[in-house]
Amino acid sequence: MGFPPGGRSARKHAAILEAATQVFLAKGYLGTSMEEIATMAGVSKQTVYKHFADKETLFAEIVLATTDQVDQFIAMVADLPVAPGTSRADAEEALHDLARRFLSTIMQPRIMQLRRLIIANADRFPELGRTWYEQGFERVLATLGATFQRLTEQGHLAVSDPMMAANHFAGLLLWIPVNRVMFCGDDQPSSQAELDRYADIAASTFLAAYGAKSPARRGSPATASPHAV
Amino acid sequence: MGFPPGGRSARKHAAILEAATQVFLAKGYLGTSMEEIATMAGVSKQTVYKHFADKETLFAEIVLATTDQVDQFIAMVADLPVAPGTSRADAEEALHDLARRFLSTIMQPRIMQLRRLIIANADRFPELGRTWYEQGFERVLATLGATFQRLTEQGHLAVSDPMMAANHFAGLLLWIPVNRVMFCGDDQPSSQAELDRYADIAASTFLAAYGAKSPARRGSPATASPHAV
Repeated sequence: MGFPPGGRSARKHAAILEAATQVFLAKGYLGTSMEEIATMAGVSKQTVYKHFADKETLFAEIVLATTDQVDQFIAMVADLPVAPGTSRADAEEALHDLARRFLSTIMQPRIMQLRRLIIANADRFPELGRTWYEQGFERVLATLGATFQRLTEQGHLAVSDPMMAANHFAGLLLWIPVNRVMFCGDDQPSSQAELDRYADIAASTFLAAYGAKSPARRGSPATASPHAV
Repeated sequence: MGFPPGGRSARKHAAILEAATQVFLAKGYLGTSMEEIATMAGVSKQTVYKHFADKETLFAEIVLATTDQVDQFIAMVADLPVAPGTSRADAEEALHDLARRFLSTIMQPRIMQLRRLIIANADRFPELGRTWYEQGFERVLATLGATFQRLTEQGHLAVSDPMMAANHFAGLLLWIPVNRVMFCGDDQPSSQAELDRYADIAASTFLAAYGAKSPARRGSPATASPHAV
């Protein structure tokens, strides 16, 4: 925005954004008033309108400002520590570890609340929801797909459609834990042990479907996945 | 309820429920007024309050009334036409067919809108969301799990944790199409061909992970799934 960083106006701008995020996440779009945001930010309602033309503009700004969180996921799925020469067992362990970290990160209450907020308002602001879906959700999956492509080239996976494999990895990992929070609210979170167990089973299932061959520990002969053909 | 079926009061009751469903689905909980429901139902606001103590009561009633839709899913996943002696190819075709029907049914706009409505209000009414999750969502998955158990006993699948396998089937099938509608709204639905393609790939991936052995058409020897151990 046009405010010098560190200046009084920039500080107010940041305070309004932070207050708006808190109020929107807690009360939803319709349940939030500009007055309440002003009170929480410690500024006048007039000041809020000086920085943001209307409630819709402010809402769009806080939703799209969550790219920080998206970048965190991008870095996580891009940086799988599997170099050429990594053993099958280590590559599989890296995938299990990724599943655990991905699930723990996405289950943070603030991320789940943001998710609910966007979904709740998708019919009201379809353009905003679509932007978030494409620049957040799909960008993470595309990066994960590139990682699976790399693992396929290294012989650890047998993936012919990397984006589809990324979709499936996410679906196996997230469908149940995310839906439980979406439907039941945030007041009964799963324990870390439950999440880790869920992540491990998802990773094993993904490897059973997309692994280049049966896991070495089973001593089976190499078997191409149906997805490689 | 306590109204004689077919009577005037019962007709009004039904008209209020139908109007409430339409208005809640279109405008959300906070965006809906009892006055608007009364107008759409063609009754007075006083009549609405005679039938339903308050907006929250009416909302809970319409959400929980969706068990008809749930029963439709239960019947679908319970009735897989796989009898003892069914060939592997026919059993796999039945699973592909189930995936296609399940996806097409769940993607109906009214079901997607109801889903968004429940998620949007899960923090406001966690008890209601939890009831719907347990009696709707989880009941369908438990029935699907029982079907997978039966297919395992018949030698077509190698499933050791039926509920987890059902979760995974749903996650592979639904994560992307459902999320796309949740985030982007209902105005750009996937074509039937896209949905069928997505369902077929999900079913193939599920079979690659949970099939009792490699598909017959590949001519591979029987290989137990890692999930069977």
